[in-house]
Amino acid sequence: MSRFSFRRTAQCGAARLGRMHTAHGAVDTPAFMPVGTQGTVKAVTTEELRRCGAQIVLSNTYHLYLRPGHEVVAELGGLHRFMNWPGPILTDSGGFQVFSLADLRRVDDEGVRFQSHVDGSSHVLTPEKSMEVQTALGSDIAMVLDECPPGPATREQIAAAVDRTTHWARRCREVYSGPGVAFGIVQGGPFLDLREQSVREITELDFPGYAVGGVSVGEPGPTISPTVRRTAAMLPEDRPRYLMGVGKPADLVQAVDAGIDLFDCVMPTRNARNGTLFTSHGRVNIKRNEYRSDPRPLDENCPCEACTHYSRGYLRHLFLAGEILAARLHTIHNLTYYLSLMERMRWAIAASRFAELRDELLGRLATREEQS
Amino acid sequence: MSRFSFRRTAQCGAARLGRMHTAHGAVDTPAFMPVGTQGTVKAVTTEELRRCGAQIVLSNTYHLYLRPGHEVVAELGGLHRFMNWPGPILTDSGGFQVFSLADLRRVDDEGVRFQSHVDGSSHVLTPEKSMEVQTALGSDIAMVLDECPPGPATREQIAAAVDRTTHWARRCREVYSGPGVAFGIVQGGPFLDLREQSVREITELDFPGYAVGGVSVGEPGPTISPTVRRTAAMLPEDRPRYLMGVGKPADLVQAVDAGIDLFDCVMPTRNARNGTLFTSHGRVNIKRNEYRSDPRPLDENCPCEACTHYSRGYLRHLFLAGEILAARLHTIHNLTYYLSLMERMRWAIAASRFAELRDELLGRLATREEQS
Repeated sequence: MSRFSFRRTAQCGAARLGRMHTAHGAVDTPAFMPVGTQGTVKAVTTEELRRCGAQIVLSNTYHLYLRPGHEVVAELGGLHRFMNWPGPILTDSGGFQVFSLADLRRVDDEGVRFQSHVDGSSHVLTPEKSMEVQTALGSDIAMVLDECPPGPATREQIAAAVDRTTHWARRCREVYSGPGVAFGIVQGGPFLDLREQSVREITELDFPGYAVGGVSVGEPGPTISPTVRRTAAMLPEDRPRYLMGVGKPADLVQAVDAGIDLFDCVMPTRNARNGTLFTSHGRVNIKRNEYRSDPRPLDENCPCEACTHYSRGYLRHLFLAGEILAARLHTIHNLTYYLSLMERMRWAIAASRFAELRDELLGRLATREEQS
Repeated sequence: MSRFSFRRTAQCGAARLGRMHTAHGAVDTPAFMPVGTQGTVKAVTTEELRRCGAQIVLSNTYHLYLRPGHEVVAELGGLHRFMNWPGPILTDSGGFQVFSLADLRRVDDEGVRFQSHVDGSSHVLTPEKSMEVQTALGSDIAMVLDECPPGPATREQIAAAVDRTTHWARRCREVYSGPGVAFGIVQGGPFLDLREQSVREITELDFPGYAVGGVSVGEPGPTISPTVRRTAAMLPEDRPRYLMGVGKPADLVQAVDAGIDLFDCVMPTRNARNGTLFTSHGRVNIKRNEYRSDPRPLDENCPCEACTHYSRGYLRHLFLAGEILAARLHTIHNLTYYLSLMERMRWAIAASRFAELRDELLGRLATREEQS
């Protein structure tokens, strides 16, 4: 079997249904990738991930490089065996975490110098190093190292990041000889002409898939700006398109509508641990007193373990008592919500009814965001 | 079906094989009860408990009374439904936790006044209140309220506790009308004559089962003193005997040898969360550097989820990274160890080979305690 292929099987407007084949199995797109930062999606097993509907997981190169170290993971048989996930794995380049988590960063054309947030030790992440680490991990999809200016940046800074991202992508392309494939990343911030330049330069390198990076996340308002929408449309139709770090449920719907195929975000898992749950009735803050003696399931429309076996009153109790089981059940629920949402979108595209579903979902999600 | 029955099916020396029937199912004895303090055995689901081999769980009246409140549990259908455990549940009286956790305790013949360790609120636990709370929870086996002097106590204090325990046991016996049965508790500390007095007074009240309380736990040296051994022998042969809060694996073996049928202890679950794991090779401290790249399972003789799917290197990584999955897998492993140990003892009694197994286990466990 070849390392990688992607086939579009249906399209509805710009929304695409597809199937991505990797050395560790197939992924139906549009797909959401749960985030397993340190070689585990927090609080759940890989068997539970599968039951939630996950077909692919993302893991973070930066964290695994620092702890336990990519050599250790390689000695233990690679990341798939290490974490007991036989399916496809995508790893990021480590760059985003260096820019957002590490101390004392210094970027130059060679790479990024930084100090570990774990123990303060000094490291250099270069395009070559990122590819080496992701190869050791055994990723099915490795991401090239890009420069993603953190926070608000000037046009000049973003233009420089686009140039450097192209330069680094070329070096990644040259050295990568891992077990999977490497995807390119487009930068350019909110500037459409810089996005165009980045798309042109990165697609010239002919990667089997492309990501849209540098999209502001965690801020109020729509994540899927016209620029992102138009950037997605510039990317080759026959390659998967990945919108990194996105997002809220409404963002996913809008991005699929813009022709995006792949997503990852910590929101379902992080919110779960904070007691914020996504349901068909809107967001639920489980610690609210109104749930104290509530015998109903969190969401009567949800088939997950939490909704099948437990009451809201019990989930609230577990959360307030600080019990690990709260994090487990909430994570299973939120992942089921996200992965079911993706599945509904895939069915709607297949049935040529995506626009209807999109309007229905965005209408309801807008109302519910206000409630929460 | 009757609320409760107990039948001995084999005996080997003083060690007894039995079957205890409750309104929520049967329990093969000698049995170990995992501790579900706040309505969950920490880090695991009840389905996992079942897979680990648990037939009965213990829950703590004190904790559930304070949070979420026994009325809330009752409104939500009782503890079995609340925590999704359809099997037998034993609850303690709340007394031990009041004596060990609560602030500003004041004991008199009426009961114990105390302040909640959760929010400082004032409460009174009386024999009647304890029975009321355990009835609301729906326990299959409720424990009478006893006085258990914490820490080192004089003979005079222990003698007074024996008297008060008898007085309270009588009041519990009179008011209990719950869905299950109430067990009596014998006190008397290390004084054989006080134990004899307590056994005489408590058994006169004719409970369907008896516990030996006030056994010092968590201290070095053998838990199963000659006094405990002789106290067990004084209890009626046709009723289950429960050694509360015990203990280490070697303690369980010695206590079964003394004719004890029921145990509970936080050791397997608490140690799991601290990274101390029980294996057929002795105790393992998973954070040790020697396990860093160790591809072997924690215990190649163990059929649990942790040992089937994960390497020592991965478990060490999860533990050092503070991942919830470490607590989960370690808890499943340690409970499997404890519950398998009980099963081996039951088979040995049935096969009239308990003495052999006891000597083998105690020999190996002694060596291994020294290693750890």
